[in-house]
Amino acid sequence: MPLIINMKDKIITLAHGSGARLTQKLISIVFAASFNMTELSDYATIEHNMVVTTDAHVIKPLFFPGGDIGRLAVTGTVNDIAVSGAVPAYLLATFIIEEGFAVSDLQKIVASMQETALEAGVRIIAGDTKVVEKHNAEGLYITTTGIGFLPPNCHLSTSKIALNDNIFINNFIGEHTIAIINSRNQLNLNPPPCSDCAPLNHLIQKMLTCSDIHFMRDATRGGIATILNEVFDDCALGIIIEESALPISSPTQAISDLLGLEPLYMANEGVIVTFAASQPRQLLSTMQNHKYGKNAARIGYVTNEVKGVYLRTSLGSLRPLPMLNADPLPRIC
Amino acid sequence: MPLIINMKDKIITLAHGSGARLTQKLISIVFAASFNMTELSDYATIEHNMVVTTDAHVIKPLFFPGGDIGRLAVTGTVNDIAVSGAVPAYLLATFIIEEGFAVSDLQKIVASMQETALEAGVRIIAGDTKVVEKHNAEGLYITTTGIGFLPPNCHLSTSKIALNDNIFINNFIGEHTIAIINSRNQLNLNPPPCSDCAPLNHLIQKMLTCSDIHFMRDATRGGIATILNEVFDDCALGIIIEESALPISSPTQAISDLLGLEPLYMANEGVIVTFAASQPRQLLSTMQNHKYGKNAARIGYVTNEVKGVYLRTSLGSLRPLPMLNADPLPRIC
Repeated sequence: MPLIINMKDKIITLAHGSGARLTQKLISIVFAASFNMTELSDYATIEHNMVVTTDAHVIKPLFFPGGDIGRLAVTGTVNDIAVSGAVPAYLLATFIIEEGFAVSDLQKIVASMQETALEAGVRIIAGDTKVVEKHNAEGLYITTTGIGFLPPNCHLSTSKIALNDNIFINNFIGEHTIAIINSRNQLNLNPPPCSDCAPLNHLIQKMLTCSDIHFMRDATRGGIATILNEVFDDCALGIIIEESALPISSPTQAISDLLGLEPLYMANEGVIVTFAASQPRQLLSTMQNHKYGKNAARIGYVTNEVKGVYLRTSLGSLRPLPMLNADPLPRIC
Repeated sequence: MPLIINMKDKIITLAHGSGARLTQKLISIVFAASFNMTELSDYATIEHNMVVTTDAHVIKPLFFPGGDIGRLAVTGTVNDIAVSGAVPAYLLATFIIEEGFAVSDLQKIVASMQETALEAGVRIIAGDTKVVEKHNAEGLYITTTGIGFLPPNCHLSTSKIALNDNIFINNFIGEHTIAIINSRNQLNLNPPPCSDCAPLNHLIQKMLTCSDIHFMRDATRGGIATILNEVFDDCALGIIIEESALPISSPTQAISDLLGLEPLYMANEGVIVTFAASQPRQLLSTMQNHKYGKNAARIGYVTNEVKGVYLRTSLGSLRPLPMLNADPLPRIC
């Protein structure tokens, strides 16, 4: 898609940070152009089969059912490394803290990072702290950088995706978004919906040893539909998702219906989309035997029946799932 | 020094981000305690002789004579890698951008990053962007992570510092701080003082090949005096600095006298402190032949004449140079 700088792009808007089409446009116009890249990817492979990735986390609120910014900062980066096929090993972290922030909250967040790092089996090895004046950061921003090691002969890529590949996800979708909406707007849902925020590297390693996996990606900002559109942009193969196969919890479905939100576009923090050639049964059983894969499902397939990403609705009709220009919910990760 | 949490430490203050004693205390109480480290260092050495480092940059203003946040983010990280003795190779960067920020300013900053990366010979390989609402970041914060490779048998460490080592710096001190004070307070000094912000890795590589260097550190937040105190904390050897030998430009000296500031505590962005056993002449000549070492000087030595860090004043008396609790000028890097 040709990208043109127009009036609307003279000023940064929240939509530029949504992870959807406008983020791609900003990256293309500003970052990739200067850094001589085709795109500013959030990870890269360097010498010694090392994969490195970096992410800024600006979520609000800082604490939510199922996690906090500390857990999210670790899992986000661990999962980015893991979906490349690499085994995450190290994390570095920077903290931009607002003057007046409670040290006890900082201690809770840092303890949560350490607990999550232990769960994932990674070590936090270096960091930096900066403090900014009151009203110059919303409490705390954390940037994490991850380093992992790719096993020999592991090359997951959209270029390996082929016709008839099955598409899997490991978990209910939309849980993180609904948890944040509930926290942020004090909806007081009872029980409070919980974020799916979790390090998926151990699950992913099990999946990689049992199946012929072609490509994986964690469905954070922009949700499942955005990942699928990025895959289509890359490999131009059609994708059909079966509405009836989507794992969506009843509370998430009910709140989404009420608020007019679409779970396929919601950010997740513990959902990976996997393209694999293998028979569904073996991979599904591996996933369902892991605590972060209990709700795993085959949700669709790669096909030449369509050009683009489509949803086969429960009524049997095909509805396009385009990439959005912007996500309706900023500061979700 | 035993560190105790007291009332004053229940809330984060700007002083906790100054790089001085209170930053050490915060790191010790919150980060090192949770992450099972003796300290939260800003760099670490991992497999394959790789050195990794990470830094958040929250400087204001974003543009200043001699640089901008983009140049500073690259040089800060390149220099952190280089003072370990490693050759910097890769950078990753995250951008937290305030809604309403001008895309043209972002383009200038990103172009400046790329120009500085080219000068330093490093590649920017991955990144991430997030956007926060107006008034939740002061324009732009950049976190950079650097990766470098340590040559075999290169082990710079405070444990190698020995009695009679000479102490060198490569440049005028205080230039960055005076440039920022002038920009921030619109003092309209003419000509405007210029930051020393520069990638020093090529200079450092030349120094390492010609001399028996024991330890190096870039004197950013907290200035030369803070580095020297950190060295004394580590190796318990006395340090005497000769006031008459300090390279300080006339404008910096004049403005410091006027404002009652001490250049030895001022942040720099292009100054390295070097401890070396070698004869001064050879190392000084190597430094002075490089564009970022023209004002190089031997500024002092390691001694058992004193316990701590002392300044021999122009009058011949010895004055202690303790570590400050806080830097008087926040948001300097």
